[in-house]
This record gives sequence, structure tokens and C-alpha cells, in this order.
Amino acid sequence: MKRREFLKKAGVGSASAVAVAGATTSSFPAPAVAQERIDIALVATWPRDFPGLGTGAQRFAQRVTDVSDGRLQVTYYAAGERVAAFDAFDEVASGNAQAYHGAEYYWKGKHPGLAYYSAVPFGLTATEVEGWIRWRDGQDLWDELQSEFGLKPFACGNSGLQWGGWFNKEINSPADLQGLKMRMPGLGGDMMAKLGVSPVSLPGGQIYENLVSGAIDATEWVGPWNDEIMKFYEAARYYYYPGVHEPGTILSTAFNASFWGSLTKSDQAVISACAQAENSNMLAEYTAKNGAALSRLVNEQGVELRQFGDDIFDAFAEAAEEVFEEVRDHSPLAARIHDSFASARKELGDYLNLAEINYINRRNERI
Amino acid sequence: MKRREFLKKAGVGSASAVAVAGATTSSFPAPAVAQERIDIALVATWPRDFPGLGTGAQRFAQRVTDVSDGRLQVTYYAAGERVAAFDAFDEVASGNAQAYHGAEYYWKGKHPGLAYYSAVPFGLTATEVEGWIRWRDGQDLWDELQSEFGLKPFACGNSGLQWGGWFNKEINSPADLQGLKMRMPGLGGDMMAKLGVSPVSLPGGQIYENLVSGAIDATEWVGPWNDEIMKFYEAARYYYYPGVHEPGTILSTAFNASFWGSLTKSDQAVISACAQAENSNMLAEYTAKNGAALSRLVNEQGVELRQFGDDIFDAFAEAAEEVFEEVRDHSPLAARIHDSFASARKELGDYLNLAEINYINRRNERI
Repeated sequence: MKRREFLKKAGVGSASAVAVAGATTSSFPAPAVAQERIDIALVATWPRDFPGLGTGAQRFAQRVTDVSDGRLQVTYYAAGERVAAFDAFDEVASGNAQAYHGAEYYWKGKHPGLAYYSAVPFGLTATEVEGWIRWRDGQDLWDELQSEFGLKPFACGNSGLQWGGWFNKEINSPADLQGLKMRMPGLGGDMMAKLGVSPVSLPGGQIYENLVSGAIDATEWVGPWNDEIMKFYEAARYYYYPGVHEPGTILSTAFNASFWGSLTKSDQAVISACAQAENSNMLAEYTAKNGAALSRLVNEQGVELRQFGDDIFDAFAEAAEEVFEEVRDHSPLAARIHDSFASARKELGDYLNLAEINYINRRNERI
Repeated sequence: MKRREFLKKAGVGSASAVAVAGATTSSFPAPAVAQERIDIALVATWPRDFPGLGTGAQRFAQRVTDVSDGRLQVTYYAAGERVAAFDAFDEVASGNAQAYHGAEYYWKGKHPGLAYYSAVPFGLTATEVEGWIRWRDGQDLWDELQSEFGLKPFACGNSGLQWGGWFNKEINSPADLQGLKMRMPGLGGDMMAKLGVSPVSLPGGQIYENLVSGAIDATEWVGPWNDEIMKFYEAARYYYYPGVHEPGTILSTAFNASFWGSLTKSDQAVISACAQAENSNMLAEYTAKNGAALSRLVNEQGVELRQFGDDIFDAFAEAAEEVFEEVRDHSPLAARIHDSFASARKELGDYLNLAEINYINRRNERI
């Protein structure tokens, strides 16, 4: 699907403002739990049919319906179809809808600990983050955090490593970042702010217009496959890699906790199995499609690839540490989440460095 | 669970022979499809409760039952409880059981293309292989191959990169491999044979006894977490890494095709969702647990880690290419599977080299 089509379908084609509305009250009726059929309204932060993020969320919704043989009837609402993208969280916390699909850092203003459940700079890759969430205390801490908002969260997709961003000028030293207005959500945005960038958080459906109009100077979004669809190359020439701000971004679904508690164990098992399945499926799709898209960007669109230099990496790393200190100061729970993350990053990272990374580096020299 | 306990439970504690029996005829009755409940006998190649491989397969079996609210009633049989480990394939192909859980290279003698659906030397990592299977033509080719045997296969677990093996002497040059009798299944074993090793394929429940008795000189099994449980350090001093023979081993489940075709779309959706969920879950468990186990092996058991040198890597790579040529010569389907694999390895590998690998190499220098 072409960018303009999904923007139109998402009803955000004319959006250009950076402002994000607060919680809205839905005019939809409360969910009907009649006989055997249970209706679930799932509100998403993605434009309809947006490849990967959106189609993955839609697959999850459809799969819950299929696996339950229609007993759990999920109706999917893309961004703007029921509430604006960033209002999805409040819509579910309030009980107006039963579930959302999005990225937790969109709501870091509610609690900075949420950002760790999408991605943080110098954070975990997709493989590492699954180890942390499912087999260390990552999920327990996430449950504890989201229970403060009346939500029950699940990982439901991963984009893999995101790219550093689209710029109109070369970034040869940290000083070149000074004064840029750049779309980058989450703690990655906070990291950039330490380096003189004005970070802006925008949902996907609003980035292109802001970049073309000059409301922002630079942007990141996902990676080659998704960024090609967004046509950012029409407005920015240089594409930087590798990104450090989102090394393996979790997409998540969260359910209203009261609704979740009303489900049978079997219905809960349907939802958690489908979320985990899509988690794997979405990463596989990005892994399979990014390479070919990158070739097209370079060969057909004339995009110029640039690699962040070591001094920029050093500046990013220092800035990220400052951001992490601020997160730890926020609250005891934020500190526990950060420390759990940092411990997983060290232990799992050291191991994978010996094993998978060592192997790939040496395999790729020989094939 | 301790090694001796699961060996005992698996009923293979006294096994020491290398021989593998042919297909056996089960005395169990045919599956009963009565009213709404469907019984599924799942035969596995793993000792009961063996961590990761076995417990993951058992989780999958239980999850299918839970998600279907008991409609699909899966009874799990560990290795030796119904048929011997390597007889699982024939048991399901013949219709005596409905499903197996194992590793496809155990049956490479039936068709060398099967090996690509567990792991091959210099092959794909867990992340890459998912991209190949789900979003290129990996699954289609697997379906075509297994349909020749009356089976419908799914990825259902991944061990991550497996370690190079346990040796009683240092392997400083390819010549040191000459004459060793080593447990290594699949095309990895064929690769070692090119270097003068006598490879042996043994199910997990029979490796320790063969190593202690001297029936084999060396072995690989999985990685630190699983190998620690096997107590190989009692019989071999040097632990080599990284392995090249199994860079991201898929564990699989396959269903008797006639049985599969008799299921409703919804029941099929339950099984495929649960398989995909366990696929992600098992890899996460290995990722989370290998590092700590490696520390214990070194610090508590005195294991000496050794890295394969570059000349050994070169010899492995050359030998693997020879093995691949033999696979391609087997049949047009084997050649198509190899070529599809090789194309995915090149395209996905090149991309990840720029992205995830580039990032991890640079992140790990800075944390």
C-alpha cells in the first residue's frame, strides 16, 4: 500500500500539527459480553494496513478471533478510526476499549519505566529483550508497572534494530546535531535533547507532512522497509545507521485489567499465545524485507547511506547514561526496571558476544 | 532436574549402544475422534523434562490443550516412552501417532533437505531462519518436502547458536580432528567427516554414557545451559566455541498430514499459533540461561574454554561447501532448498551485518 493511501484510510492525511490531544471519551458502547461471544475493541497507534507494525497488529487481532473460533471477536481500530494514535492508552485504561496495540514509549510521560518495554538507547536487541521479558524479571516488572494504570501488557511484535534517521545534512560530529528539530520518541529523544536536538514525538501518520513542510528537520521511523514506504527520501538525503535509540523495539498489546480478569483461563491462553506468535512473526517479516528495501532505496531512490562515526557513538552513549540516571531518580520502580534491564544487557550481551555475534562475524567473512 | 533423573524417567538409563532401531509398530490404539474432543499423541525425541528442548515441547503440548480449552487433548510421550527417539518420524508418518517433536536432521537419511529445517553448518541464526521460513519460501519448500512423507511441519522452538563441542584434547589445527569419533548429527557431522572425523548421531539420552565409556571421543549437544546438565565436563576438559555446525537450530513439530487435513481451520489455527509462540519462547529461554551456565561451567567445574582458530574455521567452511554440493546433487528438490537457503543467508546476513551486528559490536564496546 502506498503511503498516501494509508494516510487517507487512517484519516490523518491533513494532519500537520505536532500537538497531541489528551484522553478522549469514546462514543462507542461498552463491550457486550453475551452468551459465548466476547467482543474486544482493539485500538492501535498505527495507520491502517501500515506494513509490519499495522499489519502485524491486525494479524494478531484476526488470529485471536480465528484461534477462538469466533468466541473472542476482535474489532481492530487503526489510528484515528476511534481515537487518535496516542490516546489508545487512556482509551483502554478507562475501559472504553478492551485492548490497544502500540509502542510503550509513546506514554513515557505517564511513567519513564514504560519506555523500557518498547526500546531505550543502547538497549537490548530483539533476541536479548525476549530473554529479559520472558525468562528474567522483565515481564513481572512490566505487569507491576502497568497495573498502576489498570492494564495487563504483552509483547506483540518487534521491529528489530531501527535506523538512525533521515537528515538533510551530514552529521560528522556531535556539534552537527545542535539545533535540529527531529522526530524521535521515547528515551532516544531524551538522549538527543542532551546533544542539543529538539526531539518531537509524532505518530507515524504525521511524520511525512511535518518533514516536507519543514516543521521538523530530521526524523527516524523504523528501518529500510518501512521508511521506503514513507518516502522520506523525498525530503531528506542522508540515511544514517546503525541507530542506537531503538535496537530491538517491542510492539505491545495491553488489555484493560478488569476485562482481562473477567476472561477464562482458556481465553487468556488464546490471547497470550497469539501475542507471542505475532511477536516472532513480525520480527521475521522485518528481517526478511529490510535488505531488499535498502537496496531499492540506494539504487532506485539515490539515498546516501552514512554511518555514525565513533565520536557520535561516544556522545550518544554518554547522553544515554545521563538519561538513565534521570529515569532512576524518578521512582523506586523506575530504578528497579532500569537495573533489571542493565543487568540483562550485561549478562545476555556478554554471552551473545561470545556466541552468535562471534559466529556471524566469522561466518560473514567466509560466505 | 538432574541428568540421571531424566535419563531414568526416559527409560534410557542403560542405553549405551549407538545403533538406532528402524520403525516400530506401536501397540497404542488409533486416535479416537469422539464428539468434540480430539486426542493427539505427540512423540518426542527428547528425554522427559529435559530443560529447553524437552520442556519446550511439553509446554507446546500443554498449550495446545489449554488454548483449545481441552478440545485438542495432547498426550506427550518423551523418548522411549512410546517409541525410541529416532523412530518418532515413522510413528507419525505411518499414522500411529498424530505428531512428533524433534530436530529434522535426525532424519537426513530420508532426505538431506530435511537438515536445512534444523540447522546446517555455516547456516542461519535463529533470527535469520525465521525470516527465511516465514517470509521467503522456506516454509513452502519444507511443506513440499514433508508432504512426500505424509507430514505437515512447523518450527516449534530454537536453541540459538550451539557450541562447538567437548574434546579431551586441544584442537589447534584441522589435523587434530583426524580420527576422532564424535557425536554430531546432520550435515555438521558430514562436514566433520570431510576432516577425518567419524561422526555419530545419538539422541540426547545416550550421549553421556558413550562419552564416559570411550565409545565416542568427543561430542557436541547444545550449549552451556544444556551441556552443564549433561555433565560432559566429567569426561571432557575442553569446551570449544563458537560452533559452526548449528548456528540457530530449529526444533520442529510435524503432524500426520491426513490427521492435519481432518482438523477444522480453527483447530489448525490453535496448533500453528502455539507452535509459533513456543518457537519464540524456547529461544528466549536459551538466551536468558546460557550465560549464567557458562560462568558456572568455568568457575565451578573448571571447564577450559577454547576458541576455534581461523584455520579451523577455514577448514570447516571448505568442508561445508563440499557437503552442500553433495546435497544439491541428491535431487532437484534438495537443490532448490539449498539455493533458497543460500540466497536468504546472503541477503539477510548482509543486512544484519550492517544493522544488528554493527550495533551490538559497537554497543558492547561502550557498556
